[in-house]
Amino acid sequence: VALFDGFYVPAPKDRLTRSTMPLSAALLETFHAIVSDNGFITDKGEMAPFLEESRNRFESSADLVLKPKTTQEVAEILSICNDNDIPVVPQGGNTGHCGGAVSDGGVLLNLSRLNKIRHVDPANASLTVEAGCILQDVQKAADEHNLLFPLSLAAEGSCQIGGNLATNAGGIHVLKYGNMRDLTLGLEVCLPDGRIWDGLRLLRKDNTGYDLKHLFIGSEGTLGVITAASLKLFPKPKQKSSAFIACERINDLLDIFDKARACFGEMIYAFEIMPSFAMELVTKHIPDQKSPFAQTYPWYGLIELVSTTEQHPLQEELESFLSLLYDDSFIHNAILAQDMKQANAFLNLRESISAAQKKEGGSIKHDVSVPLSAIPTFMEETTQACQNLVAGCRVCAFGHMGDGNIHFNISRPEQMESYPFLKYWEEFNELVHDMVHKFNGSISAEHGIGKLKMDEMERYLPAVEIDMMRNLKRSLDPNNIMNPNKIIRL
Amino acid sequence: VALFDGFYVPAPKDRLTRSTMPLSAALLETFHAIVSDNGFITDKGEMAPFLEESRNRFESSADLVLKPKTTQEVAEILSICNDNDIPVVPQGGNTGHCGGAVSDGGVLLNLSRLNKIRHVDPANASLTVEAGCILQDVQKAADEHNLLFPLSLAAEGSCQIGGNLATNAGGIHVLKYGNMRDLTLGLEVCLPDGRIWDGLRLLRKDNTGYDLKHLFIGSEGTLGVITAASLKLFPKPKQKSSAFIACERINDLLDIFDKARACFGEMIYAFEIMPSFAMELVTKHIPDQKSPFAQTYPWYGLIELVSTTEQHPLQEELESFLSLLYDDSFIHNAILAQDMKQANAFLNLRESISAAQKKEGGSIKHDVSVPLSAIPTFMEETTQACQNLVAGCRVCAFGHMGDGNIHFNISRPEQMESYPFLKYWEEFNELVHDMVHKFNGSISAEHGIGKLKMDEMERYLPAVEIDMMRNLKRSLDPNNIMNPNKIIRL
Repeated sequence: VALFDGFYVPAPKDRLTRSTMPLSAALLETFHAIVSDNGFITDKGEMAPFLEESRNRFESSADLVLKPKTTQEVAEILSICNDNDIPVVPQGGNTGHCGGAVSDGGVLLNLSRLNKIRHVDPANASLTVEAGCILQDVQKAADEHNLLFPLSLAAEGSCQIGGNLATNAGGIHVLKYGNMRDLTLGLEVCLPDGRIWDGLRLLRKDNTGYDLKHLFIGSEGTLGVITAASLKLFPKPKQKSSAFIACERINDLLDIFDKARACFGEMIYAFEIMPSFAMELVTKHIPDQKSPFAQTYPWYGLIELVSTTEQHPLQEELESFLSLLYDDSFIHNAILAQDMKQANAFLNLRESISAAQKKEGGSIKHDVSVPLSAIPTFMEETTQACQNLVAGCRVCAFGHMGDGNIHFNISRPEQMESYPFLKYWEEFNELVHDMVHKFNGSISAEHGIGKLKMDEMERYLPAVEIDMMRNLKRSLDPNNIMNPNKIIRL
Repeated sequence: VALFDGFYVPAPKDRLTRSTMPLSAALLETFHAIVSDNGFITDKGEMAPFLEESRNRFESSADLVLKPKTTQEVAEILSICNDNDIPVVPQGGNTGHCGGAVSDGGVLLNLSRLNKIRHVDPANASLTVEAGCILQDVQKAADEHNLLFPLSLAAEGSCQIGGNLATNAGGIHVLKYGNMRDLTLGLEVCLPDGRIWDGLRLLRKDNTGYDLKHLFIGSEGTLGVITAASLKLFPKPKQKSSAFIACERINDLLDIFDKARACFGEMIYAFEIMPSFAMELVTKHIPDQKSPFAQTYPWYGLIELVSTTEQHPLQEELESFLSLLYDDSFIHNAILAQDMKQANAFLNLRESISAAQKKEGGSIKHDVSVPLSAIPTFMEETTQACQNLVAGCRVCAFGHMGDGNIHFNISRPEQMESYPFLKYWEEFNELVHDMVHKFNGSISAEHGIGKLKMDEMERYLPAVEIDMMRNLKRSLDPNNIMNPNKIIRL
């Protein structure tokens, strides 16, 4: 039991069972010959930054850190590891929340030097980049050709495209553009035995056999090492309109989303919701944040629209939409952003919730999704069940309603200190995830499984699904060298 | 060597190598007990319609045809087949072009009675349907809730959703909505050993382990039987604008698509191209079809835009776009459809090409895709190479430019009869597919591999990719009962 970052954390339950014999001098020399000095780290102090884990949830250790600079080097490393039964943990920007890049002996394979943008093809609206490219650099490369790479998330300045692929990253524009899987045209992968699969297609239509890229996307490095990817680019939106709305009930927000979808379709850039309590936390704890409204309301929503045409009367359409909502009593109030500054202020309110909640003391968090139609009942029943577990706990359930993705977070009761509340961590997890399961939802909407949720995944997924995953892992990585004990245990 | 439907066809090269011992009376009775009279066919005459193959390319035979009515029945059938080493060929509407539903002894599993629409969830914009549902019925079920299921293709009145999934069907709206894979939220699958995997998720965000549905989509029934699917629905477009344009060069069409994408983004509903020769064939052979233009031009394009908002000045925007194209000399001429009738007439021109080409005598067809940026050079070099092979042959390369999907078809020279020309079938296949390969394209853009393209797939894909596919097939279907000798040979 440990407290970190305001959170209670149960001790890690599993360790790697493989032998922890140190690597022989001969093997070390072989690795050194592949990557040379700049890519070879065995000094404990120099290894330390690579062994940090963002939430201090897991201990990480490695025999050595290797930083290959080419796909060929990755392939040679894997071949040796496979022949010598050495575990390999691929690591990108190391920004994940579920311990997917934590190692326990063996080779920590850091991809940050494999970071070339190989090719941009504006006419095909695609680019090909290496796994170690930082997400923001990929966005910039697209922007230089007046195109958009739409993946966008909080860690974009440090996370790498290989990690985004390995975890099928989501972020704030999934509603319009899909998640990382939907943005991928092709992959280059080093298989566990050291063979290189060149699947860097640039095609929107290709039905030649099984679509293998989908096996590797979201597999968190357990089936091979993604070394490069071909990605889709999009035309850049030319205008944006934003509105902040206030409602009585979550059901109203669902109805409003339904109407917005019918009216605006794929022009919807974001549809976010937050309860009164979230607004209270943000305005209390975050400097310069204030509600756009003079009074408080039970629920708030943020609607963002974009259009690729300049002539489209987007602002006028959103204004009429809001008028109709008001006339039909779906909303108490609404403000249409008059400029980008105000639009950004609306978005900042929504994006400050996590930071604000941290300042309110102990909280227990869940990254879940349910079918949109189930959101109101799921919210109501789960909130009630949380109250039954710890009376006075304060639910802060907010997020990407358009994707059905709710961050169902629970703050301590006002009269309870953080630590006694956080002791309910596992009970709240089970309660919330049981509810998610009841409503056919997902216990990991966008963060993945890693080490953190292996047991829970096995608890909720059908046994036959777990069995298929195990079967796939065994057939693609028979020696179990690739990121062992992540996602699924053999 | 045989002629069918105007096409020369090489004799089938492979047959199933498994024993052709007739099924025992006891096994037949076991199958009968599962599906009862209405689902059990052994009479040769009654089996005949199920053994037809759309292009008469392959002979098909079966010990019996089974038509299960529930997922449970499918599971029981597979379990028995697996235990007794009986091959199973799943069959939907039997409209495929590559022989994927052809059987060679064993059980032909026709899914047409498994055709319930299980559930429509308008607020979640999704529905759950069984594999035997006809595509048009799925479209109608969505329409009844004022939503759109966007998959649309020529066979929509008879093809089934299970076949659409098994082949990852494309069709005319891929550019805007993606192919079948992109429209799928979850699957229910019977595994070869008779276990049922309930993966009928309704979620847009779910990162719990490997995404197994993508293994089955596009696997043409070789890994299991898809029995039901949860599919995405979309808001219905409220207006549409169409224009028919005339250009000098294919390069101009590529530039115009690039500009249209930047201007209109996801409002582009279709972007189709056709050469002068295609227009000549359509107006010559198809009654009531005539060119919108008084004179002929080297290339034509069809642009369709849609919007979900009624207020958007779509027609005006398309008109200004065309004016700019004309001013900048990208087009010789353009006509903006003034009503739906004219818009449909434009689309009919494009959709009549296949029928018209058939009436011109022997032709050799290819369903290929290349990166958009490669289209002009690919077209030019391949056309020249075709001329070198058979002087005077007439290339009719048209299709979905927006997807990079070109139907590269070649008609006999005017002075050559069909039969002597069609003897070049395999040489043209190799020539065109070698060119596709050179430009990093796909030899099967939307029709799949089936029996037809197994050898060619093995010729062009990387060996490591073929090896992974074989590995997957072996691990998921160790007894090789599922649609054996399709996609990949073991």
